[in-house]
Amino acid sequence: MHTQIAPAAKAQVLPSPGSVHVLNPLSMDEVTLTSGFWRERQEVNASGTLPHSLAWEERIGWIDNFVRAAAGDIAGHHAGLWFADSDVYKLIEAMAWEVGRTGDAALEAQIQRLGALIETVQDEDGYLNTRYDKPGVEDRYTDFAMGHELYCTGHLIQAAVARLRTGFGSDDVIVRIALRNADHVCQTFGPDGQVAVGGHPEVEVALVELYRATGERRYLDQAQLFLDRRGHGLLGDWEFGREYFQDATPIREETVARGHAVRALYLMAGAIDAAMERGDTELLEIVRAQYDRTLARRTYITGGMGSRHEGEAFGEDFELPADRSYCETCAGIASVMVAWRLLLATGETSYADVIERTLYNVVATSPSAEGCSFFYANPLQVRVPGQESTPNELSMRSGSSLRAAWFEVSCCPTNIARTLASLGGASVTRSTQDPASLFIHLLSAMQIRTQVPTDDGEQELVVSLETDYPVSGRLTLRVEQAPSCPVSVSVRVPAWTWSGARLDGAEVSGGYAVVSGVLSAGETHVLELDMSPRLTVPDPRIDAVRGCVAVERGPLVLCAESVDLPEGMSLDEIALVPGAAPAIADDGAVVVPARRVPEAARRWPYSEAGSHQGCEEGGDQPAEVFDLPLIPYYSWANRGPATMRVWLPRAEA
Amino acid sequence: MHTQIAPAAKAQVLPSPGSVHVLNPLSMDEVTLTSGFWRERQEVNASGTLPHSLAWEERIGWIDNFVRAAAGDIAGHHAGLWFADSDVYKLIEAMAWEVGRTGDAALEAQIQRLGALIETVQDEDGYLNTRYDKPGVEDRYTDFAMGHELYCTGHLIQAAVARLRTGFGSDDVIVRIALRNADHVCQTFGPDGQVAVGGHPEVEVALVELYRATGERRYLDQAQLFLDRRGHGLLGDWEFGREYFQDATPIREETVARGHAVRALYLMAGAIDAAMERGDTELLEIVRAQYDRTLARRTYITGGMGSRHEGEAFGEDFELPADRSYCETCAGIASVMVAWRLLLATGETSYADVIERTLYNVVATSPSAEGCSFFYANPLQVRVPGQESTPNELSMRSGSSLRAAWFEVSCCPTNIARTLASLGGASVTRSTQDPASLFIHLLSAMQIRTQVPTDDGEQELVVSLETDYPVSGRLTLRVEQAPSCPVSVSVRVPAWTWSGARLDGAEVSGGYAVVSGVLSAGETHVLELDMSPRLTVPDPRIDAVRGCVAVERGPLVLCAESVDLPEGMSLDEIALVPGAAPAIADDGAVVVPARRVPEAARRWPYSEAGSHQGCEEGGDQPAEVFDLPLIPYYSWANRGPATMRVWLPRAEA
Repeated sequence: MHTQIAPAAKAQVLPSPGSVHVLNPLSMDEVTLTSGFWRERQEVNASGTLPHSLAWEERIGWIDNFVRAAAGDIAGHHAGLWFADSDVYKLIEAMAWEVGRTGDAALEAQIQRLGALIETVQDEDGYLNTRYDKPGVEDRYTDFAMGHELYCTGHLIQAAVARLRTGFGSDDVIVRIALRNADHVCQTFGPDGQVAVGGHPEVEVALVELYRATGERRYLDQAQLFLDRRGHGLLGDWEFGREYFQDATPIREETVARGHAVRALYLMAGAIDAAMERGDTELLEIVRAQYDRTLARRTYITGGMGSRHEGEAFGEDFELPADRSYCETCAGIASVMVAWRLLLATGETSYADVIERTLYNVVATSPSAEGCSFFYANPLQVRVPGQESTPNELSMRSGSSLRAAWFEVSCCPTNIARTLASLGGASVTRSTQDPASLFIHLLSAMQIRTQVPTDDGEQELVVSLETDYPVSGRLTLRVEQAPSCPVSVSVRVPAWTWSGARLDGAEVSGGYAVVSGVLSAGETHVLELDMSPRLTVPDPRIDAVRGCVAVERGPLVLCAESVDLPEGMSLDEIALVPGAAPAIADDGAVVVPARRVPEAARRWPYSEAGSHQGCEEGGDQPAEVFDLPLIPYYSWANRGPATMRVWLPRAEA
Repeated sequence: MHTQIAPAAKAQVLPSPGSVHVLNPLSMDEVTLTSGFWRERQEVNASGTLPHSLAWEERIGWIDNFVRAAAGDIAGHHAGLWFADSDVYKLIEAMAWEVGRTGDAALEAQIQRLGALIETVQDEDGYLNTRYDKPGVEDRYTDFAMGHELYCTGHLIQAAVARLRTGFGSDDVIVRIALRNADHVCQTFGPDGQVAVGGHPEVEVALVELYRATGERRYLDQAQLFLDRRGHGLLGDWEFGREYFQDATPIREETVARGHAVRALYLMAGAIDAAMERGDTELLEIVRAQYDRTLARRTYITGGMGSRHEGEAFGEDFELPADRSYCETCAGIASVMVAWRLLLATGETSYADVIERTLYNVVATSPSAEGCSFFYANPLQVRVPGQESTPNELSMRSGSSLRAAWFEVSCCPTNIARTLASLGGASVTRSTQDPASLFIHLLSAMQIRTQVPTDDGEQELVVSLETDYPVSGRLTLRVEQAPSCPVSVSVRVPAWTWSGARLDGAEVSGGYAVVSGVLSAGETHVLELDMSPRLTVPDPRIDAVRGCVAVERGPLVLCAESVDLPEGMSLDEIALVPGAAPAIADDGAVVVPARRVPEAARRWPYSEAGSHQGCEEGGDQPAEVFDLPLIPYYSWANRGPATMRVWLPRAEA
């Protein structure tokens, strides 16, 4: 019962008939990022992160695991953790998107080579894993809680989905392997099969995506089965509670994201996908409410999620410490996945705003400028400068306040790679009701080339967006080719500039600047967004940052980094002056007026109110006000070991 | 080479000749806590915690481990974690102190029974552990990092030290076993032996104490050897870094407590003991500086230590989150151990103040009123009411915001038990220079009966302290029997009342109220301490509690518990009014004026400064001020599931 893919499946990303959603994504073929922030990161991804990741996976044996597994020689020799296969699959997925984006033949050859190698490990019945069910090691499916076999299957499927969406069919080696593995999973864990779920969600979202790409309903049904089985204790008990892997509460009874952040968000993404495709508006609204509450109470200003190092987990509502914010890079990516699905399902621009915030302040923060080292955790405050790790050093996942070349748990680099390579396909949508209505969500220089339906077939619409955003807030929409019928092109206006956005000089109200009607080739429209730096205050219930403000500019969260401080000054002794407003300095940097408030040495850090509290050196004279320079948070830690903080204390008035 | 104990060793707790210290503790024989806060807890310890602990250790097989180990049947049957033996030894230590305190014959019979059982497991060469080196299990000393064999030895030795200090000699079964085990350790890991250290410090402090109790220098030398070997990476790498078990930096190069809090503090206690006994003032000052910096920058207002759940570890300087404060009960006990040693070494009353703070706000917080359930972690803020655990439920170490009956890692209950049972022996000291000068550090009702040297031998001094402290601040010192020579009795005056303490009506300056001269039986002196509630502010570098105050009264840190709030109000929406001062209500409770500041529901918890932020229900009318009742922190969570906070936000002026 291997699936045959119809040729029409190419680039098929559309939800199925009966699904509930209001926006359909344009495919990667239809949208090209042409320059600017994200295009540059795609280039760095191609030139830096992809070869870097492949070299690491080769060097430390994660790819060799497949050679050894096929040779029956894996016992005692498996390299990396038990889910190392998944990172090979994520790398292949990233390569697949990159081949789709650029047609890179050398990368395609790597995919073929890796696919051929992987296929040698696959069992007759479709089972595939280098770590289990080989001579001398544990049998398959003996540890659902931590074994990660279904998680690996999920990432293999996602690689195949990338192939299917970029022009390949069932004869492609990655697709072939994944379909056999997916069919094996359906047979083993189907309605009449073993009642089990995997400890780390991922297979759910992957199966729905595979359904979308193939039209094979059993994949959707299997995803729903996994969703329904979860939350009933099938995975047993665990040190951090069943909540750790979302097995404490059925998803339809849950109210917020809990436990391991990546797991919780991958599960949400799968649930939304399944709900959309099955027309299950009830489940859709439940998961949307979970995510909305998570945004309102468990999310950092960067869009980062996960407040606890222990268990890599969400904290309670408003438990959002800046210094121990975990904000795993993968959780940011997973949140983008959830928000993207809710954007498609509801059309609400607030979800696109969340995507933008998270892309700029979590996803873009993780990789270094060269794309060869990464943050695993993305804390909002770093109190002690980290130690440089050497380029060949394998790091613990969150051990350093500097980026590291690779991690023992190295989910983040390849997750970054697949996200950046596929970004073009997640930037523009069209209305399901009116295919001539386009919505540009990612504010980037791009060219859109798509067909719009007319009375007598289809005509091409070509528009480009020219901008250096977020350097400036000016975006020029240029119509390069227009059909004879009316169309509509809407450009997202982020909520932070709703009171300061102008389209062709006129105020814009609401979430989109809309250009519509019968367009003419050559016409241009200019959207201006207010990029003035803004002072942002937290909800008073976020205890950890009470009395602090952050500075944002456009989509960017800014931070102060110790390397920018005057000699001898520490970030521990900076306070913004009362009423401080950020400004743009002559050199274009954002600055905010601050004072040094040095603290006296004390034996005990708690004192009676009204008694002497700290002192300014040199007596009662208030320290001079100076301009504290701020930089985009994503760019910090590129100038050697430093301390950093996003939230800046205000001096008491 | 088994050690013979001279009869004079009874109650010997004095440092050795050549040691550096300024105070010697009076023994348990000389000090009896007669009533009040700590005496009540000693009674609950005897009636509740001790039988409770023994019942649990019997029920879940930790004692049966010795039966199985002796029978060669431990493989596959070892109950509890690999260091379960240590909790049996800690329980025996607690029982030993209790026998010393009360002469309880039934408890003594239990010690004899357990000792006889333990002795059946001890190898010919003195090695003793139920978990290792038995048929079918790992060999001895194959895992220094996590095996905890030397840690178990340390606690066995401490049990023996308790016996030696309460009138038993080398013929006592516990002493006999411990000496054989200690001698085995000295032979195995001595100067010519294996170069190793244990992952969890404890044997170091225990060996110095054994040296003090026996006079056998090799125990002191072995402790020093373990101290010197540490910090050079002997334990290998570890997920949380070598810092986790204090193996990253030699102790003489360390500047502050780092890594696992209990480990760091036990190591410090051992280092101070060794430094005192060896006259090593350099090491003493180094470790004192480590502890002083830890107090100034890494300690909670409760005296609690350990900011991180992950690794049960100290955080960086000023990383002191209230909601995720770990403040393990055992870390509080370990801090008391360190402060007690520094008090003896330096005579500085600030260390006695730390002991008092930690005893009242960490040690007394852990056990329930009945002494049969315990906090493992002692957070300063609990955001979500916990779930009641059932009396027979084995809990994870920090899983609940309510006390639990027993833990999988159950170090805390027996640590509480041994601390409370031995408290009388750690409450009064005498000057090493002038044995007729006594210093009362623990402000409790007590009777002191001791000999003071006179020109012609010794004469008895009997004084009693009568007080209901900390209910009131009145302490009456009564001389019951006085020698003919001048003596001096100093009662500690805590730093928080230095500006408000009076002895017999006269102001007291400095850290002690001193009664001295030739005293007469029957004379009394009254010390009055100012117990007015105080508003306390944190060092501004403690980001987590910026903009908050705490209320303290006497030695007690107070907190607000949700069960005391008006119906429908949440601790998330309370703010103290500007300039609020705590007061005593008619019913004797401490209250502080507060307002309800409800927050509007928002989709995103960060907003532009100056824009609408939260709202008061019913419009712009400020909510009515009400008296927020506060309770002692140690007494919280005794009225069912609740939320709680020590640090209270101040409304902005």
